[in-house]
Amino acid sequence: MTTIGEIGERQLIEDFKSFLRPEGRVGPGDDAAVIAKDVVVSTDVVTFDRHFPAGMTYEQFGWYAAAVNFSDIAAMGARPIGLTAALALPPTLDVQAAYDIMSGMDQCAEFCGTGIVGGDTKPGPGIVVGTAIGTMDGRSPLLRSGANPGDVVAVTGPLGGPAAGFVAIDKGLDYQEAKECLYMPIPRVSEGMILAESGVVTSCMDLSDGLGTALNTICESSKVGIDIEYDFLPHESYVEEISKESGVPMEELLLGWGGEYELVFTAAPDRLKRLYDEELEFSIIGMVNDSGQPDLIQDGKRRRIDHGRY
Amino acid sequence: MTTIGEIGERQLIEDFKSFLRPEGRVGPGDDAAVIAKDVVVSTDVVTFDRHFPAGMTYEQFGWYAAAVNFSDIAAMGARPIGLTAALALPPTLDVQAAYDIMSGMDQCAEFCGTGIVGGDTKPGPGIVVGTAIGTMDGRSPLLRSGANPGDVVAVTGPLGGPAAGFVAIDKGLDYQEAKECLYMPIPRVSEGMILAESGVVTSCMDLSDGLGTALNTICESSKVGIDIEYDFLPHESYVEEISKESGVPMEELLLGWGGEYELVFTAAPDRLKRLYDEELEFSIIGMVNDSGQPDLIQDGKRRRIDHGRY
Repeated sequence: MTTIGEIGERQLIEDFKSFLRPEGRVGPGDDAAVIAKDVVVSTDVVTFDRHFPAGMTYEQFGWYAAAVNFSDIAAMGARPIGLTAALALPPTLDVQAAYDIMSGMDQCAEFCGTGIVGGDTKPGPGIVVGTAIGTMDGRSPLLRSGANPGDVVAVTGPLGGPAAGFVAIDKGLDYQEAKECLYMPIPRVSEGMILAESGVVTSCMDLSDGLGTALNTICESSKVGIDIEYDFLPHESYVEEISKESGVPMEELLLGWGGEYELVFTAAPDRLKRLYDEELEFSIIGMVNDSGQPDLIQDGKRRRIDHGRY
Repeated sequence: MTTIGEIGERQLIEDFKSFLRPEGRVGPGDDAAVIAKDVVVSTDVVTFDRHFPAGMTYEQFGWYAAAVNFSDIAAMGARPIGLTAALALPPTLDVQAAYDIMSGMDQCAEFCGTGIVGGDTKPGPGIVVGTAIGTMDGRSPLLRSGANPGDVVAVTGPLGGPAAGFVAIDKGLDYQEAKECLYMPIPRVSEGMILAESGVVTSCMDLSDGLGTALNTICESSKVGIDIEYDFLPHESYVEEISKESGVPMEELLLGWGGEYELVFTAAPDRLKRLYDEELEFSIIGMVNDSGQPDLIQDGKRRRIDHGRY
């Protein structure tokens, strides 16, 4: 017998992909599945054990459980039409905590233009499974596989906030703003819809596993390379301060951590006007090439970007 | 502080309904939510603790985890277009068990005309959350609220099998067929679609909480009463045998237990031809009236049908 612990969670998810049957156009390997009738769906398991950093409230935990799913369908460019909430909570838990979790999920769903449409609860150790459902409204979904050499690479917002928040908690530093990034990530739903609607985006994914992993994934899926300019990576000033105080290098905070919910996308440079016209906020961070791998250009030096930890 | 254990799971689910916001026409209180774009969705938590009777295989557990969700959308008359699978399994579990669970979910999804379209896994005590997604294809959803006095009440198949299976396991009796009913319930997806398509069905729900509870629910939702003829209740012969051997009364097996996944529905008697034309198998078990409650007519006596246990 081989246990799940021995092969590891990542391998198990990899193995499970053989069971996935996309009913429509897009399937395993993208942020969410696009199935029949233009429907997009994504599900994620979050747990008290793993996703409940010190200082987080139950309401924020609920928001987080919803946000990770909305982020996945946002990365496809979908419009959310519903969220289901399945909770397995300890019978010893204060019932107010359960209401707070539901309230947090509800608030996040409302932020994303929809609501909780169904749910279930059973006793358990503190596990919440959200499933976000969306529609493409006839738009083409944003995939990871369409980037072309010559495209620019861009992100929808500042990087490193959640990683810096995690480090601040870990090291006992007082940076509430960074911690809030970790506790309440903003799913980029309206941004994703603008990106899909524009027709100029060639690939897109969310940064839930970190920018490093996302860039590697886009390179693999699109069979391209990417050069990222370190100086272009947008971030709040507190990320630099936390890096200095903690000794955790900036590159690691900006590229190597997950829990980040901005979108990274690629587009032909001569077609960006469509995105500026929509007043989408984004930062260009690099270029697509044909090198086959993502590199970081920093102080005139080039080095391979790895997957990072997350 | 009040704990979840103190208020109880049933009350918690009741409380959670205040968070549910049906995005479309049908919401909390029916088997599944009908949301925008004709999409129907249902989610259920099943656990090793509660839903893994002796003798069940991991594959059957997976089938069960999928079936309960497909049954909910079948009760609305939806056509399944996808299933997501979120697993929280012990790291010490044989990895083959995880594949078997996925395989069981996959087989059930295939039986229902669709497949697994997404999933996630994290460590946990043995919890599986399936979310079934379907479409109404423009049909009107089957609700619990439309039954009219004078309608007949019918079920799509024999009753009491899963309850008898549970009792057989509990009492150490050897009735494999009954046990299989419990291990691998058949979601009545094609039946639900025929019922919705027919246009003659006035109310419908599944029997996951037992026939007694379903009849009470239809009476409450439709503001009607129902008379059930005991002698009309269809069942396999082994249900009677298990009842005799175990001493558990037949009425309890047929009405008082959940884990049953037939559909109960109501329809005007002069419009049943539509259903016979479709070669739908069903049994008429009673009539809708205006008494406001479900009664059982047995040996010329009438008694109130209660919710039963499940």
